[in-house]
Amino acid sequence: MKLLRVGPVGSERPALLDRDGTLRDLSGLITDVDGALLADDTVLTRVRDAADSGELPVLGAEGLRIGAPVGRIGKVVGIGLNYFGHAAEIGAEPPAEPILFLKAADTVVGPDDTVLIPRGSVKTDWEAELGVVIGSTARYLDSAEQGLAHVGGYVLVNDVSEREFQIERGGTWDKGKNCETFTPLGPWLVTADEVPDPQALDVKLWVNGELKQDGNTADQIFPVGEVVRYLSHFMTLYPGDVIVTGTPAGVAMGQPEPKPYLRAGDVVEVEIEGLGRQRQEFKGA
Amino acid sequence: MKLLRVGPVGSERPALLDRDGTLRDLSGLITDVDGALLADDTVLTRVRDAADSGELPVLGAEGLRIGAPVGRIGKVVGIGLNYFGHAAEIGAEPPAEPILFLKAADTVVGPDDTVLIPRGSVKTDWEAELGVVIGSTARYLDSAEQGLAHVGGYVLVNDVSEREFQIERGGTWDKGKNCETFTPLGPWLVTADEVPDPQALDVKLWVNGELKQDGNTADQIFPVGEVVRYLSHFMTLYPGDVIVTGTPAGVAMGQPEPKPYLRAGDVVEVEIEGLGRQRQEFKGA
Repeated sequence: MKLLRVGPVGSERPALLDRDGTLRDLSGLITDVDGALLADDTVLTRVRDAADSGELPVLGAEGLRIGAPVGRIGKVVGIGLNYFGHAAEIGAEPPAEPILFLKAADTVVGPDDTVLIPRGSVKTDWEAELGVVIGSTARYLDSAEQGLAHVGGYVLVNDVSEREFQIERGGTWDKGKNCETFTPLGPWLVTADEVPDPQALDVKLWVNGELKQDGNTADQIFPVGEVVRYLSHFMTLYPGDVIVTGTPAGVAMGQPEPKPYLRAGDVVEVEIEGLGRQRQEFKGA
Repeated sequence: MKLLRVGPVGSERPALLDRDGTLRDLSGLITDVDGALLADDTVLTRVRDAADSGELPVLGAEGLRIGAPVGRIGKVVGIGLNYFGHAAEIGAEPPAEPILFLKAADTVVGPDDTVLIPRGSVKTDWEAELGVVIGSTARYLDSAEQGLAHVGGYVLVNDVSEREFQIERGGTWDKGKNCETFTPLGPWLVTADEVPDPQALDVKLWVNGELKQDGNTADQIFPVGEVVRYLSHFMTLYPGDVIVTGTPAGVAMGQPEPKPYLRAGDVVEVEIEGLGRQRQEFKGA
């Protein structure tokens, strides 16, 4: 299923994009698309049956804002340098074990919402990423297979990053990962059953119509199941937590000088096979 | 005021410790102690008036669990190496600007709850800290005075840290800061009006009865108001967000070999002048 949250910021309602591409209202069935839903097979089955029946109310899509497709996110965990191509472009060795950082859930916005370039920023960069939404509590998992079994769904993410804040201002990467609006998410959460192989997805990103990233999750150093297993030994993952699994080659930081960092007025579009497309206009904060 | 949340995990009720040390029930007045309360002067005044009246129902304290005194925390921001004495003990230069890291809100537990030593951990360490609870949304503040004006209250924190995970496993400090139960908070939130000078508080920590940390917030490199101002340029701070402002000298990592890292059965007690006292037993996860 493709699950969405649509409507004004802070009062999104749950919705579903059915097989015909029709937007359907789920607010008669569930209160939100969130970790509680993903953890509840009974309710998920009820939603799936209602979707199959074709009888869910149609929602007029025109003019409707699409919000982030997961509500009440607990934490967003980022994986750094997780594509061989991206590590190579910035001159880094592939890491021996996953690098993690955190993004606060309050940085999450809808897939087409405006992204704010922080005041004083000259190195705001893009990162097209496969996002993983946890479906059941994961602690001390033994295998990558177990890791995959704890995934509730997948989602498209732009892990917007300020490189000066991240790298040149002392301390951890978190300083450049948590500016407001820095985590566009969506349009849909695709339930895990509809993504048979998360390591075979094209990941693309354009800036002002020009293709900048053109990768595939097959290039990930640590695949999704292994990332979930690994993280579960350092933190407990809860339903609704989101893992952003790293970006392929093609970010601004990896390009020759003058590096094409984002400026007010730039438009970024992001796409992953089957997970939909985002479009953000960047503006000054 | 000293605000608390008491009762079983996940169903804590709001309470108040009055000037006589009597525990009073606030659940007839407010639903929770959280960011929404701190941001609402009208409701805060109503609570204060009710406290002054002496007519709030008394709560039997015996056998009552004390929870973390802030509910629905959005994010926990950590400041690293923020005491001259702690930087010196681990051989680090005082940082030129604040070092930040993040702890997920799901790591927060009550002040006397059990803390779990992660499986495989051999370097679990303590950090007594002054916690700052944000009272109003802070974005791009101009001065430390403005920073202080956005503080809703103060709280005692043990910023438990796994040093191997934090430093030796690649990537950011977050890897050793986000194990479950790693952020004991409380017992009370003291509203900012009752802490006239946050830079003059004794901070103490004992392990199995032996005094290990004996500092004062006067030794902070970046004082509270400056920390809030600084952070507000990298992220938006929302009511209910918590900043853990760094630890004084005396952590296990700073001591001679063999460093006295925590083991199952150890008991840690933490105290800050006016902010109460914590007591945690450490157990294996």
